[in-house]
Formats: sequence, C-alpha cells, structure tokens
Amino acid sequence: MFTPNSLQKIINKEINAHFLYIEEPKELYEPVKYVLSVGGKRLRPVLMLMACNLFSDDIEKAIKPALGIEIFHNFTLVHDDIMDNASLRRNRQTVHSKWNINIALLSGDAMSIKAYKYISECEPGLLKDILQIFNKAAMQVCEGQQYDMNFENAAPPKSSPKGRTFENTCYCNTIRIEDYLKMIELKTSALIAASVKIGALTGGASNNNSRLLYEFGRNIGIAFQLQDDILDVYGDVEIFGKKIGSDIVSNKKTFLLVKALELAKGKILTELNNYISRKQFNNKEKIIAVTNIYNKLRIKELAEKMMNEYFNIALNYLEKVSVDDKRKEYLKSFAKKIMLRVK
Amino acid sequence: MFTPNSLQKIINKEINAHFLYIEEPKELYEPVKYVLSVGGKRLRPVLMLMACNLFSDDIEKAIKPALGIEIFHNFTLVHDDIMDNASLRRNRQTVHSKWNINIALLSGDAMSIKAYKYISECEPGLLKDILQIFNKAAMQVCEGQQYDMNFENAAPPKSSPKGRTFENTCYCNTIRIEDYLKMIELKTSALIAASVKIGALTGGASNNNSRLLYEFGRNIGIAFQLQDDILDVYGDVEIFGKKIGSDIVSNKKTFLLVKALELAKGKILTELNNYISRKQFNNKEKIIAVTNIYNKLRIKELAEKMMNEYFNIALNYLEKVSVDDKRKEYLKSFAKKIMLRVK
Repeated sequence: MFTPNSLQKIINKEINAHFLYIEEPKELYEPVKYVLSVGGKRLRPVLMLMACNLFSDDIEKAIKPALGIEIFHNFTLVHDDIMDNASLRRNRQTVHSKWNINIALLSGDAMSIKAYKYISECEPGLLKDILQIFNKAAMQVCEGQQYDMNFENAAPPKSSPKGRTFENTCYCNTIRIEDYLKMIELKTSALIAASVKIGALTGGASNNNSRLLYEFGRNIGIAFQLQDDILDVYGDVEIFGKKIGSDIVSNKKTFLLVKALELAKGKILTELNNYISRKQFNNKEKIIAVTNIYNKLRIKELAEKMMNEYFNIALNYLEKVSVDDKRKEYLKSFAKKIMLRVK
Repeated sequence: MFTPNSLQKIINKEINAHFLYIEEPKELYEPVKYVLSVGGKRLRPVLMLMACNLFSDDIEKAIKPALGIEIFHNFTLVHDDIMDNASLRRNRQTVHSKWNINIALLSGDAMSIKAYKYISECEPGLLKDILQIFNKAAMQVCEGQQYDMNFENAAPPKSSPKGRTFENTCYCNTIRIEDYLKMIELKTSALIAASVKIGALTGGASNNNSRLLYEFGRNIGIAFQLQDDILDVYGDVEIFGKKIGSDIVSNKKTFLLVKALELAKGKILTELNNYISRKQFNNKEKIIAVTNIYNKLRIKELAEKMMNEYFNIALNYLEKVSVDDKRKEYLKSFAKKIMLRVK
C-alpha cells in the first residue's frame, strides 16, 4: 500500500510533469502553473488515491481524476481570492494581485475546464457516475461560497422574515451554528467527500462502501474546516502557513465568531459587537481583544469538542467499511495527522 | 424534419422549464435565470439539433447537450462582460452591472458547471467522445478570449521580437488579418464547430460526416463573426440589437480596423491613428470619422468578400456530407439567414 507521503509525491510529480511546459497564450497558462506549483497539502487528491488504494493496489487509474480534483480546488481558490479581495495565499501573492482580475478570472475558467478534462480521463465504465458525483459537488462548492458571502454581509432585515430557514439566514440578525455548519458542508466538505467517493469507486468499492466513505469524507471535511477556524486564532504560524488572526480582522463568520456571538452577553457582547462594527481599528489590538473574548467564553474548547465529534463520526463510518482493518490504517493515521496539523 | 424556428422554440421551452424555479441560494441562481431567459438567437443549440436532425428524426437525445452548449456560451458572455467592463448586452444590463462583479463571477462559474451537467446527459455511448470535443472547444474559447484581450492591449515592444509568431502577435506593432482570424476561430467558431459535431455524432453520423460538419461549423463561425464586425458599423440597430459603432468607440481589433490599419497610408493613416490614440473624444464624431475612413478604403466590401469566402467554404463542406441533399436544405437556408441577419 502507498503511504500518504508517497501519494503526495506522486501528485506533485504528476502536476509538475503536466504543467512544466507553459502552453500559449502564456498570459492564460502562466498563472495556472503558478497556482498549481505552490504545493499545499494536496488533501483532496491524496484522499482520493488513498480511498482507491483501500480496495486496489492499482492506483494508476485514479491519478487523472485526482489531478482533476486538485485543479478544480485551486480554481475555486483563485476565484474566491478575487471575491474576498485577498492579496496573499499560502504566503504568496494571489493571482489577481500578481497579475490582474481579468487574468485571474480567465485563468480560473481555464483551470475549471482543465479539471473536467482530467476528471473525464477516469475509468471509462465509471465516467457517468464520476461526473455525476463531481458535478454535484462542484455546484455545492459554488453554493457554499455564495452562502459564505451572504453571511459576511448578514444584516438585520428591514422587516424580519416570517419563518426562518437556512436559505434566508443572511436576512436574519444572527447566523446560527447550524447555518454555519451547512455552509461549510457545501463550501468545503462536499468536494472532499466527492474525492473520497470517486477514489473508492475507482478502486472497485461496492455502492455501500463508497457511500460509507462519502460520509467519512463529509464529516472529516467539516472537522477539517473547524480545525482551520481554530488554527486561524490559536495556530502556530510556522505550521499553519497563514497569518494568525486574519479571520478576526475580516469579521469572518467562523465557528468561533458565530459561537461567541451566541454566548456573549452584557458587557462582553457590547465589546464584541463594537469590534465587529468598527471601521477603523488597529489589527493587532483587535486580534488580541477578540481572542481574549473567545478565551473568556471558552470558545476554543467548544470548537475542539465539535471538531472531535465530527472526527469521531467520520472514523465510525470508516470503521463500517467492509475491507480488512489493516488497509484502513494509513487513512486513519492521515486523518489524525490532518486534525493535529503536524508538519 | 424540424425547421430552425421550431428548434429555437424547443430550446426556449426547455430553458424556461429548467430555469423556471430559482434554486437556493437565489443570489447565485437568479442571475442564471436572468441571463438564459433573454433569448437571443440560440445559434449553437439550434445548429446542434439541426446537425442531429440531418441523420436522425429523433432529436430528443440531443436536447440536453444542446442546453449545455447554450448555458456554456452564456457563461462565457457573463465573464467576458466583466473583463470588457460592458454595461449592456442584448439591450439589457449585464449581470455585473445589475448585481455586482462577485455575483457575476460566481454565477458564471455555476453556469459553467451546469453546462457540464447537461452535456454529460448525452447519449451514454458517446459521453467520452462528446466530452473530449466539448473540453477542447471550451479551452479554445478561453484561449481566444485571452488573445482578444492581448490584441486590445497590443503595443509596440521595447525591443521587437526576433521571429514573429501568432503567439507573440500582441508584442508586435500591428495585428495582421491572419492573427485576427486565428483569434476569432478560437473565441467564436470553435464552440460553433463543436456544437455541430456533437449534434452530428448524436444523430448517428459517421466519423467522416461529423468531421465534415465540424469544418462546416468552423467556417460558418468565422463568416458569422465577420458579419458581426460588419454589422457593428453598417448594421440596422433594429435588426442587430446592439448599438452601432461600439467597436469603433472601443478600438476593438475587428476585421475592419485591422484591415484599415493595414491599408491606410499617409494622411488617412495619421487620421485613423489619431482617433485610435485619442483619450478624449466625442463618440458620435469618432464613429462618423472612422466609418468614413472605412468607406474610403472600401473595407466593407473587403470584409464581405472574406465573409463570403468562408461562407462558401462552409457550404462546400456541407455539400460533401453523405446524406440526402433534401435533408441539408434547412441547414443551408438557416446558415444563409444568419449571414443576411434578417429577422
């Protein structure tokens, strides 16, 4: 069986081989190479290959769709960065900062088409099923991004909606934890779940096993996003690879902020709302003050509790997959490693 | 057999049926409905269904991919309008003008995924081939858009490139007609050609017939774009549906401008360059003056000559398709109608 590290190396090698030569027009393809060559965790393709490897020693047939998933994920990052007006990603300039918005927009489009090209090079007998799984997840990612933007702009409605549903959440005064969870399920975990399922099917998994692995991916994806929210505030910048506190600065509706807004009362709530609504502020001061509020409300512990719950649900699904327990070891330890986010 | 009009109605009916109900989040899907409900010529899906109908009376199996092609085409328009900073399309506000850039960007992404969803619902036995044809055309559309943007910004290089190729055209002082033709082949005719080929294959065409129809589509697409360039200056606004002279105002590198820059000499060249480089100008005055230059150089006649050449090449390819001549009549008359752009 393949170790997660060796799979990561395979993915990196394949990406370098496919994107070594910059096609013409270079204005379109240079940013594609730039984005894909940064590396990153390669979480989705590695999970896809591991899920395939659970059932088959021949992972070759899953490599092209694994590349496709990684390219698609990076396409969404390029476009998200435009929408979020983000200047840095993985410690490097974002595409629209390095070039311009038009280049980032069109290179992103080209990446999404490249993604479909590689996904389509899957096992021919599975093409229809794999496309269906992928298309669904791809739409969910867009929907999640839209809800995320809606939540950012969440403001009290002129008149309150009569019934509250997930969809009209952004018109309500507060985002609830369940709204937040639904959003990250769409934006983050849908594609992770699809990656695992596509890998499993490619490896020859039964429908039941691939369904169980989809649920494993879905829950691990939510746990992973919760971990990301925690690390943004409490992480080690060396390991995390991003600036600490950027979610606080931008008032991002993370689990931490949503939970804090739910629990805070009296003076603490006033202080929190004050920091959220202030237009002019010192970043460092705001990060320290909001972190302090989180500490008072024990938000980190609550986030970790929820993260562990999803992580354990994920492991339970993996447990039920009918394949020799020994074959599950790498996947289990990889998932744990992600949760601990150790280099 | 189906008339082009009846096929257009079928497409409109299908689009209305599929996009009648706006899914959630509505911020994402409302613009999709807005864009698709405008109508337009439905050129690509109608050509796809007609190509299918050449070989088969059952066009039902081509309807989903026809919808997919139309959705994809509209996705490219939404993103192109962001890049071109265009405020109007088909006499209505563009998506980013009506909503904002983020909404237009993400709705466009969602449309491209929807496009793949519908394309994938083609005849299962043809799925791999159809995806390959579609993926290739989709990449070409992106490449063509990039060259188009490069050409817009074409400026004399600091030092002239040693050898001139199509790819480094934008670094040369002038765009040649052959560069222009290569660009519109990618940006416009590749998707039209793919539409016709996918339709033919779905109808059961042989490889040779579908190859001939691809060439028919490729050449008709170029002729169609040349016609569009001519109509922008010499069209009847009622029939054209766009403002007259907008290409002149924006210095768009159309066949007319590229040819005029190639032929103009002395005083006329100075006057033309003057209008192109001037930052402040009266739109109406510029349109009249540049049209006047085109008239002096007989640019319209040259454009029509080239358009007719491509149109005839297209008809020659259609001629060679081994199917009863009677079955080709609708396609022939539809192509002629497009060329004349009669309502």
